[in-house]
Amino acid sequence: VPARLTRAHAAELDAADPLAALRDRFVLPKEVRYLDGNSLGALPVGVAEAVAAAVSSQWGQHLIGGWNADGWWEAPRRVAARIAPLVGAVPGEVTVADSTSVNLYKLLVAGLRLQPGRKVIVTDPDNFPTDLYLINEVAATFGGAVRHARPADLVGALDASVAIVAYTEVDYRSGERTAMDAVTALAHQVGALMLWDLSHSVGAFPVDLGRADADLAVGCSYKYLNGGPGAPAWLFVNRRHLDRFHQPLVGWTGHADPFAFDPTYHPGQGIDRARTGTPAVLSLVALEAALEVFDGVDLAAVEAKGRALGDFFIELTDTRLKPYGLEVASPRDATRRGNHVSLAHPGAYPMVQALIDRGVVGDFRAPNLARFGFGPLYTRFVDVWAAVDTFVEVLASGAWQDTRYQDRAPVT
Amino acid sequence: VPARLTRAHAAELDAADPLAALRDRFVLPKEVRYLDGNSLGALPVGVAEAVAAAVSSQWGQHLIGGWNADGWWEAPRRVAARIAPLVGAVPGEVTVADSTSVNLYKLLVAGLRLQPGRKVIVTDPDNFPTDLYLINEVAATFGGAVRHARPADLVGALDASVAIVAYTEVDYRSGERTAMDAVTALAHQVGALMLWDLSHSVGAFPVDLGRADADLAVGCSYKYLNGGPGAPAWLFVNRRHLDRFHQPLVGWTGHADPFAFDPTYHPGQGIDRARTGTPAVLSLVALEAALEVFDGVDLAAVEAKGRALGDFFIELTDTRLKPYGLEVASPRDATRRGNHVSLAHPGAYPMVQALIDRGVVGDFRAPNLARFGFGPLYTRFVDVWAAVDTFVEVLASGAWQDTRYQDRAPVT
Repeated sequence: VPARLTRAHAAELDAADPLAALRDRFVLPKEVRYLDGNSLGALPVGVAEAVAAAVSSQWGQHLIGGWNADGWWEAPRRVAARIAPLVGAVPGEVTVADSTSVNLYKLLVAGLRLQPGRKVIVTDPDNFPTDLYLINEVAATFGGAVRHARPADLVGALDASVAIVAYTEVDYRSGERTAMDAVTALAHQVGALMLWDLSHSVGAFPVDLGRADADLAVGCSYKYLNGGPGAPAWLFVNRRHLDRFHQPLVGWTGHADPFAFDPTYHPGQGIDRARTGTPAVLSLVALEAALEVFDGVDLAAVEAKGRALGDFFIELTDTRLKPYGLEVASPRDATRRGNHVSLAHPGAYPMVQALIDRGVVGDFRAPNLARFGFGPLYTRFVDVWAAVDTFVEVLASGAWQDTRYQDRAPVT
Repeated sequence: VPARLTRAHAAELDAADPLAALRDRFVLPKEVRYLDGNSLGALPVGVAEAVAAAVSSQWGQHLIGGWNADGWWEAPRRVAARIAPLVGAVPGEVTVADSTSVNLYKLLVAGLRLQPGRKVIVTDPDNFPTDLYLINEVAATFGGAVRHARPADLVGALDASVAIVAYTEVDYRSGERTAMDAVTALAHQVGALMLWDLSHSVGAFPVDLGRADADLAVGCSYKYLNGGPGAPAWLFVNRRHLDRFHQPLVGWTGHADPFAFDPTYHPGQGIDRARTGTPAVLSLVALEAALEVFDGVDLAAVEAKGRALGDFFIELTDTRLKPYGLEVASPRDATRRGNHVSLAHPGAYPMVQALIDRGVVGDFRAPNLARFGFGPLYTRFVDVWAAVDTFVEVLASGAWQDTRYQDRAPVT
């Protein structure tokens, strides 16, 4: 084994890591190498206390008064103001509400309404399944049509009938990253709106929707934003569209005057009109506390560390896992990659299960991928090294072929 | 003051209350008369511990493994199984997801799809604003039409063009309760589907969607179910419709095989198809723990106590508040009333604020209603007595006319 692939070298990389201290902002189980922060980010230190206060001191003692006294009513705006700089938006372009899926529906319908006379939604046939379901549903319901094109083939799919181009920036399987600025510019050349799903982007590296001049975006808050299981999602609407933005899930919190109980809907000012019902306050409080881990953090450094972790993992894989038939199924060029690396093998499912039993947590994505994510705020180079070392044990011993691993139920 | 309107008599009523011990299942601030459980139910005792465990022991220690190890994945089903008997449904007819508004959108669209050739949605012009907004939106978008008729005038509004009759069982302002069985039967006579919003019903008295043979229903979980601010909502689809039920918010958790990451949507078995995105686990855990307060509780006794509390409040109002110009704006017949009573007065807004400052918590509903709800699980007759006594002080002293009360921001 070359010196640069030893545990000692991994420890040196950690010692030189300018972000190493950020790990102290998280509660992490001992003896676990957690490489699944791309599915569910780790627990930030301040969350337990914030949530306990929301339950016992706020709800328990202030009851309905919590909406004012404890700022619940303003919480979506405060959380949005924390997310906006992470995606290159101004605060008035982002709100926090509902799930990513529900928000995607709002944007797709509102996007078609912004584009009268155009009906085609272009998307990647390998987009995340929910995105495909919703695009198909909205197209079928609202007189649209779906056109499939991978980002590399986008030019040939564009014409004046295209209303929206809807892509996910980082592929949930391969980790391949699409060039946001260039693709947005292509969409705009034919007058299409550009909608980005940033679920695997936000918090992992700098995103600049403003520089890209993107029109619409959604994202999840429980991956690299560490907001907790099922944390409320966010959405972005470029401010140039807000006045004409009309989403279909019209509820009282999106009304211009929620407390007037007006029988007629008048959309709220700006991004507030993208809201629908009463926000899930406890989950929102958790997310708000979680976002404090980004205070003072340079996202360019986060991106650099994520790439270095991924490169180290790929190098270790090529040397130590490839002999067992594992192939890197993610871009080797870190600039074309998000923050996870997938390895292809027909036995990926039981391998992932065997690793989990040994404290190495990645996940499986059908049909044959073992996926490993590198939350740059808390993942160490020694974690990556140890994960691969354990993987070698599992492969060399044949432990992964135990039938109980094949039979175990999947996790999300 | 008649003997039956004294504090001593209120204390006797509490002593004789078969549900009095249930109050111990809640954490309540001292010195507060909480009459707003119809907006946000009080905190059940077990919630803080359950949520703390979900954050620290589950998310913090098990990370992504919490979906299996801690039962997050099954949580919507478990919570639905607790709500189903409260509304007279079988467990496979109820799911827990999203907000009431989002669920209402799903049911309205799916309901129209179940009724090809029919396009009219009949609703009450005084329905809750969100319900009106969504009904208008869905009708406008899906080729429908809206017809307004109060429940008392329903017969004249029914014909073979009616797809859905959508009512809220208990009016959020007056508290007037609509006869669920009779109205559902009327809708069925012309082949319409009956959709009930049970936000102000569930947990306050027995609801029997099965006996009424209702088709669709939604409800909120943070009022009489005490699930916490913005708790996930629930929805009901009569099992006879499930096979053909096709809602538009198609997401991965509603898919027949969520972990196959199938690019084509195939709706899940039964009620699972009404789900969309990843559930807000922390809020869901709070709701699950909160529902334990209903263990062994007879809802008929809950209803009886709620009616008695309301009757006592009305009697006190007639004797002690009416001289100051306050009028009961709710049905006096308890069988025609939900679990809150509203009083009309042009000064209702500042009056409610002045009461809140004195530890009596009700709320205001535009344009002129002071609204008081009686969570039967924790409200005592002495609370009702003391609330009215404080109200008399506020009126007699003119304290409510202080301008700071008029200027204060509203609470939900």
